[in-house]
Amino acid sequence: MRVVNLAETFGQFADHWSPRIVGEVNDLDVKVVKLTGEFVWHHHEREDELFLVVAGRLRMRLRDGDRDVGPGEFIVVPRGTEHCPVALTDEVHVVLLEPKGTLNTGNVSNERTVADPQRL
Amino acid sequence: MRVVNLAETFGQFADHWSPRIVGEVNDLDVKVVKLTGEFVWHHHEREDELFLVVAGRLRMRLRDGDRDVGPGEFIVVPRGTEHCPVALTDEVHVVLLEPKGTLNTGNVSNERTVADPQRL
Repeated sequence: MRVVNLAETFGQFADHWSPRIVGEVNDLDVKVVKLTGEFVWHHHEREDELFLVVAGRLRMRLRDGDRDVGPGEFIVVPRGTEHCPVALTDEVHVVLLEPKGTLNTGNVSNERTVADPQRL
Repeated sequence: MRVVNLAETFGQFADHWSPRIVGEVNDLDVKVVKLTGEFVWHHHEREDELFLVVAGRLRMRLRDGDRDVGPGEFIVVPRGTEHCPVALTDEVHVVLLEPKGTLNTGNVSNERTVADPQRL
């Protein structure tokens, strides 16, 4: 059973919008991801998705308005809810919690889709 | 959809070993808890349990040895694994992720069992 240091995991990769799996809790994966700029609008049919910001500042665009999330804060986007994450700072470090197999782009498939995230 | 500030949630209660529910992701609860001293040895039959330390230092006692967990670090205790959390500092602030309905004392029922955690 290992102890995972979040800062160390963020030090192991440099690319953006490409989640890495760093742990599992029952049916959920714990992932880390670096964000920059703006992502794509999408939703997940069956999966809630928790975004915990550990560095930088995230804007979660939602159809009913934006929510800004800073370090030490989290937001849970419920299944079925359209959302578009945007980095308000140069880079945002995020811990994601979502069911195993959740695609980062949800119902959208494009060049940013990561079908098989690397495990750290 | 709300943004949850972890520090604010820890400011809303003072007692120890009594988890509060602060969010839900699919079948899991996100809880916050303050630890001091030593808990009781127990295990969970079907539930993995993630401990993310946000302040202080946690020792997770396991039958195969201890694991120490500091701020920004987490450990996942798999289902069926006996464990006993111990606060190495006066107080430890922990974010817990575990399936809904998980009892804090697992297979043990005693005066520290919290059957119905408060929601913040």
